[in-house]
Amino acid sequence: MKAVMLVMDGVGDRRCASLSGQTPLEAAQAETFNELAKQGECGIMDVISPGLPNGSDTGHLALLGYNPFEVYTGRGPFEAFGAGIQLEENDIAFRCNFATVNADGMIIDRRAGRISTEEAAALGKAIEDITLKEFPDVEIIFKPTVEHRGVLVLSGKGLSDKVSDVDPHAVGVYYQPPKPLERGPKARKTARILELFLERAREVLNNHPLNQERIARGLNPANALLTRGGGHPPKLKPFHEKFGLRGAIIAGGALYKGVCRAAGFDVIEVPGATGTVNTDLNAKMEAAINALKTYDFVLVHVKGTDSASHDKDPAKKIRMIRNTSEAFSKVVEYAATENIYIVIASDHSTPVEIGEHRGDPVPVTIVGPDVRRDYVERFDEISCARGGLGRIRGIDLMPILCNYLGKMSMFGE
Amino acid sequence: MKAVMLVMDGVGDRRCASLSGQTPLEAAQAETFNELAKQGECGIMDVISPGLPNGSDTGHLALLGYNPFEVYTGRGPFEAFGAGIQLEENDIAFRCNFATVNADGMIIDRRAGRISTEEAAALGKAIEDITLKEFPDVEIIFKPTVEHRGVLVLSGKGLSDKVSDVDPHAVGVYYQPPKPLERGPKARKTARILELFLERAREVLNNHPLNQERIARGLNPANALLTRGGGHPPKLKPFHEKFGLRGAIIAGGALYKGVCRAAGFDVIEVPGATGTVNTDLNAKMEAAINALKTYDFVLVHVKGTDSASHDKDPAKKIRMIRNTSEAFSKVVEYAATENIYIVIASDHSTPVEIGEHRGDPVPVTIVGPDVRRDYVERFDEISCARGGLGRIRGIDLMPILCNYLGKMSMFGE
Repeated sequence: MKAVMLVMDGVGDRRCASLSGQTPLEAAQAETFNELAKQGECGIMDVISPGLPNGSDTGHLALLGYNPFEVYTGRGPFEAFGAGIQLEENDIAFRCNFATVNADGMIIDRRAGRISTEEAAALGKAIEDITLKEFPDVEIIFKPTVEHRGVLVLSGKGLSDKVSDVDPHAVGVYYQPPKPLERGPKARKTARILELFLERAREVLNNHPLNQERIARGLNPANALLTRGGGHPPKLKPFHEKFGLRGAIIAGGALYKGVCRAAGFDVIEVPGATGTVNTDLNAKMEAAINALKTYDFVLVHVKGTDSASHDKDPAKKIRMIRNTSEAFSKVVEYAATENIYIVIASDHSTPVEIGEHRGDPVPVTIVGPDVRRDYVERFDEISCARGGLGRIRGIDLMPILCNYLGKMSMFGE
Repeated sequence: MKAVMLVMDGVGDRRCASLSGQTPLEAAQAETFNELAKQGECGIMDVISPGLPNGSDTGHLALLGYNPFEVYTGRGPFEAFGAGIQLEENDIAFRCNFATVNADGMIIDRRAGRISTEEAAALGKAIEDITLKEFPDVEIIFKPTVEHRGVLVLSGKGLSDKVSDVDPHAVGVYYQPPKPLERGPKARKTARILELFLERAREVLNNHPLNQERIARGLNPANALLTRGGGHPPKLKPFHEKFGLRGAIIAGGALYKGVCRAAGFDVIEVPGATGTVNTDLNAKMEAAINALKTYDFVLVHVKGTDSASHDKDPAKKIRMIRNTSEAFSKVVEYAATENIYIVIASDHSTPVEIGEHRGDPVPVTIVGPDVRRDYVERFDEISCARGGLGRIRGIDLMPILCNYLGKMSMFGE
C-alpha cells in the first residue's frame, strides 16, 4: 500500500484580526482540503513538542519519523544535500544567504531584496572561483539554490562545526566575522577559513556588475554572504529500512529535498517547481501522480504558504492555500482509484500577522479506505482539533501512517 | 474506593466496508456501553505508542501500569503463570501451539484445526511423560491450556532464553528445529533440549489414537508442538505495592491470568469462562460482582471480540460486543449502588477486515461518582476521540484511575 503526503510549509496560523478573527485556512474555504477532512481522520500535531517553534529542517525530520533531538546536526548539511552535493562524514556544510550590508558594515537586508534565482546563479559563478591559498588542503564549495539561498561546504582535515553563525537573523546589526565556539585548533582554523572566504566573497560581490546595476535601479545589492547552521552530515537510518517504503520528494526548495535525500529519498526534479509562490503547482501534482506509480511514499512540498506568511500577506497565503487545494484535487482523484492513502500536513505554524515561525500545532488529516472517519468537516486549526486523531506529535505521524500501510512490526504477541 | 475494568480484547477497529463504513462498535449500538459513555469521561488510548501494533501480553502490562519496554521478557512466562505454574527466576517458559505438520514437514495449520480444550488435555497427558535421559538435570513441564494453546517450561541450570521461535507465525513453511541465538554453551544446550523434546512430542502425538481418529474424521491432527516467546519470568513490582489495590482477574484465557498473576493478582476461576466466543459471560459478571466484595480492583477479560476479529467475522464481533454489553449491565448496576468506578477498555485494536492486530488507538471510558462527564454519547472509536480524556497512553490509564481512587501520592507539596 502507498501514500502521498502534502506538506504545506508554515500553513498553521492563529486568529487574524485582518481576517475577522479567522485563520487563513478557515478563510480560504479550500474545497479539496475540506472534502478530505470530511472523508478522513483529523487532528492537530505538535511537530516537535507543544509550544516549541521549529525550523523547516527539524520539522521535516519529525514528519519523516526521525527524532530531531537525536539526529539534527544543523541546517547546513540538509541545504547541501538539497543542492545535490554529496557530503563526506567530515565535511561541514553551512546555509548561506545573499544579503545587503551597507557602507558602515551594517546588515540592512538579510535576503538582498529577495534576488532572483537567476541573479544568484550569476553571482555564484563569480564566487565559485575563490580559493584560499592560505589553506590549500581545504576544498570550498559554494552553490546558490533558490532566490537568496545558498550553501557552502568546507571539505578537508582538522575542521570543526563549532563556529558561530554570521547570519544574526536580524537587520540593523553589524556584520560579525565567524568565531570559534570551542577551544583547540580545529574551530580556530575553521573560523579563519570561513572569515577569509566571506571577505573575498564580499570583494567579488561588491565589484560584480550585476550588483552595480541593482544599485543603479535602486535595489539592494547582494554584496555579502551570511552563513549559519553549520554542521557535519547527520546519520539517518534510511527511510526504506525504517519503514519499508521507497520514498520520493517533489519540492522546489533545496532544504526539503535535502532532508529527504539525507533520509534516502529520490528527488524528483520538476521544471517550474521554484519553491516560491509562483511555483507550477499543476506540474508538481502531475509529477506526484507519476511518482506514485513507482514509489511507495511521495512527499509533495509547497513553500508558498510559508513565504506568504513571512511576507505578512494574508491574502497571498489564502490564495496559495486555495491554489494548492485546487491543484491537489488531481492527486486525490488518482489516489481514490488506487486506494492510496493521503496525508495533509505541515512542518510548522507561521502566523501571518507575526511573520515568523511559532510553536502552535498544525492541522493534519489522514484519508484512506479504512481510515476512521470522524465528524470533522473542515481542514483548519480549530475544526481538526476535534478530530479522531486528537493531538499527536510530528514523530508519531509516520508510525500512524505506516500502521495503515501494514508496515509496522508488532511488539509482543 | 474500588474499580472494575472490563477489557474487551481486540475490540478497537476501523471503517468496515461490510458495515457501510461503520466500525463494529458503532454498528453494535451496545446499550450498556453507550450509556456508560454518556455518564463518563471518554477518550482514545494508544495502548503502547501511536501506530505501534502490540500483543495482548504487552497490552495488558501497559493497562496494568507497567512499561512493557522495561519489563517484558516474552509471552512464554505469562502463559506459564496463567496455567498456574510457579516460575523460578532461572526457568524459561515458552508459549506452545498444537499444530499440524504434513508428511513433508510443512506446517499446514498452526492451530491443529483449533482442537478442543478436552482433546488438548488428553494429548497433553501423553506428552507429560516425556523425559530426556540425555539431560537428567533439567525438568520439563508441559501443560495445555485453552484449545490449541499450551505452555512449556524448562527448569534447571545453565539454560538461556536466547533460542529461536519454532512457530513461524505462518503456514506453508517447513518446520525448523530451534536454534541458539547467542554464543556459548547455554543457548546451545537449551536449543538442543527443546529440539529433542519437540521430536519426542511429535512421535507421541503422531501415534496417539486421538489423532488417528481426527485423521479418520478428515480433521487436521495435532501432531506437533510449536514453541515461541521463550523467556525468564519478568520482574514486576507487585500491583498492590504499586497502586495500593488488591487485584483479582476473571478471564478464560491463560495469558491474561498470567500477566495479572505475575503482577500479584489473584485469579478467580469461573466455570464456563472458556476464553472463547462461547464463554459464559453471565457467570463471569456474577463472579466480578462477588470479587468486588473482597478486592479493590477487578479486571474482567473478554476474549471473544478478538477471536471474532481474527476470524474476520464482523457479525460475530458485533454479537460478542452486544452480549458483553448486556451481561455487563449487572456489574454496572452493582457498581452504581457501591460507588465503584468502572473502566471500559481494550488491549489493542484488531480490525476485523484485516484479521490481525494493528496499532490503532482503542476507545476508553471511565465512569464514577465524581468523574468529569463529557459530551460523548456512544462508546466507539470515533465518538470517544472527542471525549474529556483526549488521546492518552495505556501506561497512563492506571494512574488516571488511581487518581480517582485516591491512591496516587503527591509529587512536591
